[in-house]
Amino acid sequence: MASTASHQSSTANRQWRLRNRPVGIVDGDTFELTECPVPQPREGEFCVRLIFLSLAPVMRAYIVDGGVIEERLPIGSVMRGRGVGEVIASHHPGFAVGDIVHGPFGWQDYAISDGSGRVLKLNARVGSSSLALGALGLTGFTAYFGLFDIGRPTAGDQVLVSGAAGGVGSVAGQLARIAGCRTVGTCGGRDKSRWIVDALGYDAAIDYRGADLASAIREALPDGIDIYFDNVGGALLEAAIDHIRNDGRIVVCGSISQYLSGEDKRGPSNYFDLVYRNARMHGFHIYHYENRFREAEERLATWIEEGRLAPAEDRRSGFETMPEALRGLFESANFGKCVVQIGDDPLA
Amino acid sequence: MASTASHQSSTANRQWRLRNRPVGIVDGDTFELTECPVPQPREGEFCVRLIFLSLAPVMRAYIVDGGVIEERLPIGSVMRGRGVGEVIASHHPGFAVGDIVHGPFGWQDYAISDGSGRVLKLNARVGSSSLALGALGLTGFTAYFGLFDIGRPTAGDQVLVSGAAGGVGSVAGQLARIAGCRTVGTCGGRDKSRWIVDALGYDAAIDYRGADLASAIREALPDGIDIYFDNVGGALLEAAIDHIRNDGRIVVCGSISQYLSGEDKRGPSNYFDLVYRNARMHGFHIYHYENRFREAEERLATWIEEGRLAPAEDRRSGFETMPEALRGLFESANFGKCVVQIGDDPLA
Repeated sequence: MASTASHQSSTANRQWRLRNRPVGIVDGDTFELTECPVPQPREGEFCVRLIFLSLAPVMRAYIVDGGVIEERLPIGSVMRGRGVGEVIASHHPGFAVGDIVHGPFGWQDYAISDGSGRVLKLNARVGSSSLALGALGLTGFTAYFGLFDIGRPTAGDQVLVSGAAGGVGSVAGQLARIAGCRTVGTCGGRDKSRWIVDALGYDAAIDYRGADLASAIREALPDGIDIYFDNVGGALLEAAIDHIRNDGRIVVCGSISQYLSGEDKRGPSNYFDLVYRNARMHGFHIYHYENRFREAEERLATWIEEGRLAPAEDRRSGFETMPEALRGLFESANFGKCVVQIGDDPLA
Repeated sequence: MASTASHQSSTANRQWRLRNRPVGIVDGDTFELTECPVPQPREGEFCVRLIFLSLAPVMRAYIVDGGVIEERLPIGSVMRGRGVGEVIASHHPGFAVGDIVHGPFGWQDYAISDGSGRVLKLNARVGSSSLALGALGLTGFTAYFGLFDIGRPTAGDQVLVSGAAGGVGSVAGQLARIAGCRTVGTCGGRDKSRWIVDALGYDAAIDYRGADLASAIREALPDGIDIYFDNVGGALLEAAIDHIRNDGRIVVCGSISQYLSGEDKRGPSNYFDLVYRNARMHGFHIYHYENRFREAEERLATWIEEGRLAPAEDRRSGFETMPEALRGLFESANFGKCVVQIGDDPLA
């Protein structure tokens, strides 16, 4: 078969390992592809056959500086990242063969786990198992807690979401609509602008590559912004502060515009305007909400079943494409949550 | 009498008017001193004889760019600013001769008012009428709502207050202590550092002019910061974010470090660390709390009566000193709320 190289065999475990830390985004020299035998679980462990691997902009930080939460990945290690897979062997009382689980399994075909590191079972089976990396996984939970707990929307609120076509943004905008808000999203390019309105139900789109941001925001949100759900930072964050309304909430979720700038990190120079609007910026991290993941999964699954939430997935195929797919996130190539299929999905 | 120049006469109304917008802080050419007859109130108005005038760093913004809330003061106008005085003539049903009132009366001996612009009566008479500009006026109210409503202290919280020797900071630190918090203040110079501990009851002081800020904060607050009450911005805000604890609150109240920097305004470059700490920055403005001023006045007055709150006042004397006193705020010259006495106080 022509696709042999892309699919798992039962004897080899392909792995992407870190070769060099990137200076720019990610290049051909950042990772190397290796093989080793499929690992066997010991007592208290289980083995997962990976079906989908997740990609998110923050993953670049793992290999550059680790971010604040994660350790920096050592050279030679298997690249860190979440995946969803099927338990194929288990000596762990909490995980049975056949369970669909998602967790920090890394860029490989097979992973051994003891359940630590926020390994979760996919309980709500309302679609492909890839949803465990998108709307029904940490991505969707981030949108859920960010919007509802931090943003606290009420019907009629004017909501701006940046990175609206991304994994978190594509869910956050739909949740804001479910909450009865008017939603505007920012994204890169005309095609995406059309897509977030047509496919995700945003009321309006702003192409950040296009016209003057300030006037585009003023036009799309003439009464100002009640909630700004920020995945981008930088100039967009400043423009949003300029248009924030009294009692406005800024949900600080991501800052993709800053992930590559190294030493030139910048805060919003107009942050003090928060004073004049009684507005606030809330940072939050999804790990903080760990004891409420089940609640998020249930509600998100219900909305999917009801047809009110359309999980937007940009699905690639082939283990070999991982580095390129990570790079693509920074070039605004993805429409929705980016996942790479590397094995057969029993839920499909 | 030698002091005649400093005191009111019954026939002349001295006024400080804006002559030139300052480039630096304030210089000898910024204001000019003029005289006119004492004004007479018409129907619906009353006349106030000013006793004390207030000084605060934000006042420089009125003459430079107006800030966001206030209009920029036109050249030739009487300098804007709050004062406290005695009603000496009234054709207004809400204000009687003898009332002690505080409001935006400007830099002059006598003012006509129709009660607009947040003219308040001093109800709680627990000291000199100057308290209406400090602990029992907008200054104290700002500390009160900023700490309690925005900061939400609980006993045992670690609180850092910048500008701790200033008008707002000198009250905020004492309120944090009343709330059972451990309080650390930043200020400029050794004398002030000693003073905020001895006179205001701060647990520790950090001289921002002295050693490395980061290590000073780490030493004074080894477990990190739960509440940062910020009157300063700039490097101090960044250092505080570096030491914020999980669920930390940053009360954005002032930014004196930024008031003079013109185009070079900066936001905290590490603002995104709020994400890793689930921390937040709240801007607030005292006008937002207008319908609760009475509550603040009553509670603050009670704490003063009980000896738990010591209003810290840096009292100057003489109308001629106003421009110099304003300048002094930016040179960190004041110990506590800066007021200038320009007339006799019936409460003294």
